Amino acid sequence: MKKVTFYHAGCPVCISAEHDILATLDPAIELTIVHLGEEKVKVTEAEALGVKSVPALLTPSGNVLHLNFGASIADLRA
Amino acid sequence: MKKVTFYHAGCPVCISAEHDILATLDPAIELTIVHLGEEKVKVTEAEALGVKSVPALLTPSGNVLHLNFGASIADLRA
Repeated sequence: MKKVTFYHAGCPVCISAEHDILATLDPAIELTIVHLGEEKVKVTEAEALGVKSVPALLTPSGNVLHLNFGASIADLRA
Repeated sequence: MKKVTFYHAGCPVCISAEHDILATLDPAIELTIVHLGEEKVKVTEAEALGVKSVPALLTPSGNVLHLNFGASIADLRA
């Protein structure tokens, strides 16, 4: 099964993008949602995967799509 | 039927994002692909819809998701 991960930080831009992604995503794809504001332990992992800002979508091919701009990943370390 | 429009300009960032979007999009959604480099007449329309850069995805809710950054819409007027 194909998997995608949606990274966000609870910001308004993130929530809006989440709604849009959920509305267009193939129901056959397994979606994981990671709130980097609440799961700070995952910030380093996300960064290693190529996440530079949130909201972002890690696609099945391993690419990261940065969707608009809510917050820099660096700001989520604070 | 829900519809989305993918705007791009043929750049490498655009092509990569297009592949990723096609791989995750709900098959029940009607996808229109607009190449703003070749269809310059649609640049003004895209801009009015909120497209600031390409690649971008106009979602069923009317929001625009800017996916990474390939080129500014202003540069497509040239």
